[in-house]
Parts: sequence; structure tokens; C-alpha cells
Amino acid sequence: MKKLEQVYEGKAKKVFKTDDPEKFIVDYKDDATAFNGLKKGTIQGKGVINNRVTNHMMKMLESHGIPTHYVEEISDRETVVKKVQIVPLEVIVRNIAAGSLSKRLGLPEGTKMKSTVLEFCYKDDELGDPMVNEYHIYAMGLATPEEVKTISDYALKINAIMTDYLKDLGIELIDFKLEFGRLSDGTIVLADEISPDTCRFWDSKTGEKLDKDRFRRDLGNVEGAYHEIMKRLLGE
Amino acid sequence: MKKLEQVYEGKAKKVFKTDDPEKFIVDYKDDATAFNGLKKGTIQGKGVINNRVTNHMMKMLESHGIPTHYVEEISDRETVVKKVQIVPLEVIVRNIAAGSLSKRLGLPEGTKMKSTVLEFCYKDDELGDPMVNEYHIYAMGLATPEEVKTISDYALKINAIMTDYLKDLGIELIDFKLEFGRLSDGTIVLADEISPDTCRFWDSKTGEKLDKDRFRRDLGNVEGAYHEIMKRLLGE
Repeated sequence: MKKLEQVYEGKAKKVFKTDDPEKFIVDYKDDATAFNGLKKGTIQGKGVINNRVTNHMMKMLESHGIPTHYVEEISDRETVVKKVQIVPLEVIVRNIAAGSLSKRLGLPEGTKMKSTVLEFCYKDDELGDPMVNEYHIYAMGLATPEEVKTISDYALKINAIMTDYLKDLGIELIDFKLEFGRLSDGTIVLADEISPDTCRFWDSKTGEKLDKDRFRRDLGNVEGAYHEIMKRLLGE
Repeated sequence: MKKLEQVYEGKAKKVFKTDDPEKFIVDYKDDATAFNGLKKGTIQGKGVINNRVTNHMMKMLESHGIPTHYVEEISDRETVVKKVQIVPLEVIVRNIAAGSLSKRLGLPEGTKMKSTVLEFCYKDDELGDPMVNEYHIYAMGLATPEEVKTISDYALKINAIMTDYLKDLGIELIDFKLEFGRLSDGTIVLADEISPDTCRFWDSKTGEKLDKDRFRRDLGNVEGAYHEIMKRLLGE
């Protein structure tokens, strides 16, 4: 497969066309941003870790019946994925209050909520990815009711699968962000990444943060946390 | 009925106990606030207008099958209402993009949306009444799924009734905020007020704003707009 011209560069990844019109190549960078791009930096080796961790999680989820965009890892930083049109929603699943939810709703970080929370944010950097509900999604034509139903069902199922899987590795899944895409026939599949950039992982015993909050909050040992996640998931 | 001690003072109303344990008296003030209390002022005669306009609307809605807290108007500013426990949600219905929605979602004010938008905000002044979705409501125990269903159905029905009613008076209903309460037996009824403080009313022909946006945005003729709404609704 030939890597052709770049079609997109995001904060943490580049996406390239290939000679197969239904396939893209994703290339993970070490660049790190936080607070809607206000804070910028580099996390050495992050691109390699996020590529490998994401692919590991995608394969694990596929084996549990979740369709994903994953096709094949072709290098430490590069992966072939199915070409999708991204649904312009950040899908956030929360088990324990943390981050923006704690701040917005006045719930101390670490509060176990009565039930799982699912949030949608409209992917728009200029607007700061504002939270939307289903009525906004339909009023703005961002997705159909059938798509929102499919995405919600997948997100809650992914939460159950990942929570179980990570528990055995001594990791508590606090919250995470997903993105979904439409294949050319309209099928919804999980896309984007699943990594310490997009999940809050806390050590089950010590409560130590093993995710991007170490970068956001200047907690130190950022690279160590990313490596620890890769070690626990991939055994290396 | 005897008016007893005050139980609550809000930004625009005071609430008093009465000698009937299931009844309160609401007393409307001329005080006006905006932007979560940051802007303060007085709108001469507002208390009288909002009391009379609210009662007029509540009676009209009751006649269309919406249960409300309204009992009896006892003076220009005072009304007897059923005692309720307020559900801590601001229920916002939007037909045309305006105000905070325009700003948050980048939709120019006046944009007709593809479908009606219903929003819930958690009533908490310190947090700035943050928007919540149904998952937050259940996770925080603010209302039950049955209550949210009842409230949503009422809110959308109220929108249809009010939109029709106001159209005949040359008023376009842009958006409005409702609050609901629980009677002592748990029954959900419409509470709070329906007035130029809580609705956006635009003149159907000229587009002139006939609501609190005149105060929020220093548009002038604030009292005139409130009087115009009373005149069109009550014919005086």
C-alpha cells in the first residue's frame, strides 16, 4: 500500500491518503496539547505508545463485537485504518467524576456517580467543543437519531468491556473520549484513538494518575505514566 | 388566607407561607438581574406585569390540560400558588437560535433550527446553572426518568400551545425557560413564572424584542416592551 498526500493534521495525528480509496494511514505524533490547544508540549515517545495502545484496544474491542476502523499496524507510529467520515461529536463516557465534569457540576474529583454518564460535545475547536444534547444534534443535523442510538449503545458497551479488561491490569477506568465515523456505506464504526491522551486511567491501588492529566496539571513523570500503560496492556 | 413568614427570596420574587400548609403566596418584585446576577437594575412596574402575565398564561395552559401551581391572584403583585418542591432544573425550549445557544453553538441569532431544542440546566447559582443531560440528572439524582419524561412532554406541549396562542397576538415565541415542581403527593406541575423575564418574545412583523433582552443589552424602552406584552395578552 502506498502512502500518498496528507489529508489532515490534528493535534496528535496526521492522516494520509493511500492508493486504496477506502483506506487511510494514521501517523501518531509526540505533540501534546491541552485546554483546547492553549497548553502545548511534547511527550517523548507518545506517538509510538498511543499507536500501539490504540491498536491493542481496537483489536480487543473487535473481538467483543465492536466494529472499528482498525486494519493493520504498519510501523511503530503508523496504522492503516478504514476511511471514514468522522461524526462531529466527542463521545465522553464517565464512571467517576473528574476534570471538566467535576468543575462544571461541583462534584469533587473521585466521586463515584450513581450511574454512568454519557456526554456529547460538538467537535468545533473555535467554539471550544461545547456540550450538546440530542435535541441540538438533530437541530444542527450533526447525526441522525438512529446514529445517536447506535453510537450511545456502542459507547456504553465499550465502557463495560474496557472497565472489565483494565480492572485485571490494576487500572481503574475513570472516563474516556471516543469518536465514531461513517464508512462509505454509512456503517458506524469506532474511529480515532484509545490511549492515555483520551482516557483517564488511575492505578487501582494507589490512585496514581497514568494519563494526560500528568501533562495537563504538571504532575511530572508524564513519559513514565504512558510507558506504564503500554507495559500493563502489551506486557512490554 | 393569612400571609405568614417569608420562606424564600429570589432575584425577582418572594415566597411566603400561608395558614394553609399546601399553599404559598408569591410576591413579584421590580428587581431585574441578568448574567447570573452580575447585572442588576429595576424595571418599573415589572412585578405587576409579570404577576398578571404569568397568571394569564397559567390559566390559558390549564385550559389546555397542563397542570400548574396557580390558584388565585390576590393583588397586583401577589398570587396564591400550590406549595411545591421545585425540581432543580431550568427547562429551556428553543424554536429560534438566540442568546446563550447562539453563542455556544455559533448559530447566528434568528436562525430557525431544523427542530425544537429542549435543554436542561442544573439550578445552581454558584455553578452558573450549567447545562446537563439526562445522564447527569440521573447520576446526580436530580429527578427520576419518569419525571424527566413528564417534564419533557409538558415542555414540548406548552411550546406548541404558547407558540399558537402568541402568533395570533403578533408575537413570535423564540425561546423560554420553565420550572416544574412536585406537589406533596409527587405530582409534577408547572411552577415559577412565564413572562418577558423568562421568554424571548419578538414582534412577528418588525422583529422588535419585547422581553428582558432590552434590559440585558441596554436596548432602551424596557418598560414599554413589558407593557406592550401585557397589553397584547390582557388587552389593557
